[in-house]
Amino acid sequence: MGEVAVVLLSGGMDSAVAAAWAREGGSGIVALTVDYGQRHHGEIEAARRIAAWAGAREHVLLSVDLRPVGGSVLTGEGEVPKGGSAGGIPVTYVPARNTLLLSLALGLAEVRGAASIVIGVNRVDYSGYPDCRPEFLDAFRALIGVATRAGVEGRAPLLHAPLLDLPKAAIVRLGARLKVPFAETRSCYDPGPCGGACGRCDACRLRREGFAEAGLPDPTRYAPA
Amino acid sequence: MGEVAVVLLSGGMDSAVAAAWAREGGSGIVALTVDYGQRHHGEIEAARRIAAWAGAREHVLLSVDLRPVGGSVLTGEGEVPKGGSAGGIPVTYVPARNTLLLSLALGLAEVRGAASIVIGVNRVDYSGYPDCRPEFLDAFRALIGVATRAGVEGRAPLLHAPLLDLPKAAIVRLGARLKVPFAETRSCYDPGPCGGACGRCDACRLRREGFAEAGLPDPTRYAPA
Repeated sequence: MGEVAVVLLSGGMDSAVAAAWAREGGSGIVALTVDYGQRHHGEIEAARRIAAWAGAREHVLLSVDLRPVGGSVLTGEGEVPKGGSAGGIPVTYVPARNTLLLSLALGLAEVRGAASIVIGVNRVDYSGYPDCRPEFLDAFRALIGVATRAGVEGRAPLLHAPLLDLPKAAIVRLGARLKVPFAETRSCYDPGPCGGACGRCDACRLRREGFAEAGLPDPTRYAPA
Repeated sequence: MGEVAVVLLSGGMDSAVAAAWAREGGSGIVALTVDYGQRHHGEIEAARRIAAWAGAREHVLLSVDLRPVGGSVLTGEGEVPKGGSAGGIPVTYVPARNTLLLSLALGLAEVRGAASIVIGVNRVDYSGYPDCRPEFLDAFRALIGVATRAGVEGRAPLLHAPLLDLPKAAIVRLGARLKVPFAETRSCYDPGPCGGACGRCDACRLRREGFAEAGLPDPTRYAPA
């Protein structure tokens, strides 16, 4: 690409692989991490390390505390489930989260003159999240074309979701090929007091299964049981 | 309407009239004010007073500091122009601002079960803002349908922009009919140290002309010249 890409970086595994994908494509990376009051705050420190690893020219941290909105266990209401998915939209769903993340990325892309926006969403494992679906991404692409100065001037950034259709094991393999430092990434929704992964929430299960299916060692640091 | 409407309330005149419009339509109002690091911080106090006047059942204040993004005089870069519009997109444009505001409103609407979202954008006077155009609003409506649980379940909130096509004088007249306490609203982009309006920025000019054209007294408190 050779141009600037705004990469949404949560600190988790998927967005780290998405950043590596953008870097491999030749983009200069402007990393964007959003602290929205999520429980798994250690992700933000992880995002800093991933941004440095990816050679980001800039790492922008924005904070918007969604706790007054509520409606998700990730921002403070109720318990993170540890027994596997109950079907339907998970309680870890944060209403309109990806719309919010992409709107912040869109503003940043406009100011930095970015040619693309990269988001590590995946619909295979999180099919229950409405805003991880291709129809959501397509609707946001249409919005990009009319929402900003760049859109009006015919140079709207492209929206890439390179992991959209990959099973977790394929994401692990892609990340391994791109030498993503998986040990630095955090996926757990409910880490222990010292930052170890719980190993039992949906995010931990999927991550663990991904490494197992890929036949690669899992470098995740788990909290003592 | 008889249902809940999330109303974006900036503290300015237009959003106050939009709130009054929603109230007249019978909606219970959940007011949402977003502090995005704008200069005209007095707007937020004004928003509190307007929310109380409108009988809002709740007033949610969310903060997201856009100063690290930059790109607008409203979030700290350069001077607010006082000599009238130079044509094109004004320097007071905040990149992707309405996308961001609507994404926050969308999440709140989902959690509160709101049937509608109301935004006081207007394309007559601010035709230079890309995200005050009907094509932007239509694109966001399409996004709403696919972005959230409510959308997936076929009960996506409606997005209303009741002031979209009204000249400023018509907004003043509508507000007067609905008894909007204009003296409590703040429109100025660059108020003085004691909160008085500058009288010369684009927002002040439009507001002043609106009252003049409507033939109604302007209750705005202006800063001493």
